Amino acid sequence: MRFSDDSVVGGVRHRRFTLARGSRTVPGVLWSPPAEPPEPMGLVLIGHGASGSKYQDYVRSLGRELASKHQLAAAAIDGPTHGDRRDDGGRDGQRAFLDFAMMWSSEPGMTEEMVADWQATLDALLALEGLGGPVGYWGLSMGTILGLPFVAAEKRVSAAVLGLMGMTGPTTERIRADAPRVSCPVLFLLQWSDELFSRQSGFELFDALGTPDKTLHANTGGHGAVPSHEFATSASFLARRLSRRPPAS
Amino acid sequence: MRFSDDSVVGGVRHRRFTLARGSRTVPGVLWSPPAEPPEPMGLVLIGHGASGSKYQDYVRSLGRELASKHQLAAAAIDGPTHGDRRDDGGRDGQRAFLDFAMMWSSEPGMTEEMVADWQATLDALLALEGLGGPVGYWGLSMGTILGLPFVAAEKRVSAAVLGLMGMTGPTTERIRADAPRVSCPVLFLLQWSDELFSRQSGFELFDALGTPDKTLHANTGGHGAVPSHEFATSASFLARRLSRRPPAS
Repeated sequence: MRFSDDSVVGGVRHRRFTLARGSRTVPGVLWSPPAEPPEPMGLVLIGHGASGSKYQDYVRSLGRELASKHQLAAAAIDGPTHGDRRDDGGRDGQRAFLDFAMMWSSEPGMTEEMVADWQATLDALLALEGLGGPVGYWGLSMGTILGLPFVAAEKRVSAAVLGLMGMTGPTTERIRADAPRVSCPVLFLLQWSDELFSRQSGFELFDALGTPDKTLHANTGGHGAVPSHEFATSASFLARRLSRRPPAS
Repeated sequence: MRFSDDSVVGGVRHRRFTLARGSRTVPGVLWSPPAEPPEPMGLVLIGHGASGSKYQDYVRSLGRELASKHQLAAAAIDGPTHGDRRDDGGRDGQRAFLDFAMMWSSEPGMTEEMVADWQATLDALLALEGLGGPVGYWGLSMGTILGLPFVAAEKRVSAAVLGLMGMTGPTTERIRADAPRVSCPVLFLLQWSDELFSRQSGFELFDALGTPDKTLHANTGGHGAVPSHEFATSASFLARRLSRRPPAS
């Protein structure tokens, strides 16, 4: 893991990193409190949505809030076809979205590669000084399409925020197999008039999650209209759960 | 409105009251901070569930939490066939439940009488020294069956917690007519495996609420298994909304 910068901006430490993974490179960012707490910090991994990146507004503001308000580290990596994995750095969000949709439909290995990227990122982050506390995951929409399989596979994740996705799409069979294996506490967000994933398919996915400790929050509006209070609520949910749980050994 | 006692217990002022309403008497309780805040206090009206009373555990603890943590007044009155409206004082919850179910099926005037009882109670409470701030309503199950029509009719209510009920039962037509008239912010609670009100009927009721500012929280388990964190969340929701909103004039 190579860090390309390290600075404190507005009270939050910000480190950009790349992780070499065979023929590809995983570009990421790590936010953390400027001073290391006495205990190993908890860590939240944030999976962004399609057309966005590790630096899109809500990812950045969530990462900064987790660091400043909750004394947690937070990391985001670019998803397949997104951000710094592209030659244009992901400046054309619609192009990244389209490429993702095509890859989702045609390359069943995409999920597995992203799970492996997250696991390698987690291995490297947990080896950093100051980290090593409990781990959470936060990802909606594409962040659930690719993140739910990661949470199902990764026993080190002890709480997750998922949602804006349903039991539908090209990787439904993978999701159907993985959902019952999600065993950590989950907060699941759903938009009542989601134009991309039907309400019913969202309920079906929530229902299929294996954990008995799950809560669904539904708000009015379309796919992109998650109210700001749910971002704050989801950050508090993770902070509360990570403070209660030791990392799985 | 006659007060039969007035005491401070564990940091919360507790007043029992009765309100004469023609041939019947409305028995109630009022919790409030022991010292009056400088501003007129907000008030939350709490409608209990079938088989319970104004003094059942979660009503009492919610009333006390609103007073001690949020500096709000909170009042509960016994519902029809419940509590001190009965000769036995409501000690036999199952009997009260059965009587309510029969009355719900056979006396269409029951809803109207309870709405009138709540309105008369609200008139009397708002005339008390120290009160007069924004008004909220909290009621699940029977507290929604009888409380949703009250919230729909009462423009002084500026935020409500409803739920554990669906678009079903003997008064469905009344509920169907009133739900679109609920115009204040609503937090709606639903239990994923509710054995009394189907998930689908709950979604239908949430969908029918007229307010665009509504959030649904679903948790796993049956009708009686609302997790304790939702009580705290719902109290905070009301406190936040009542602090932001002046009472409707």
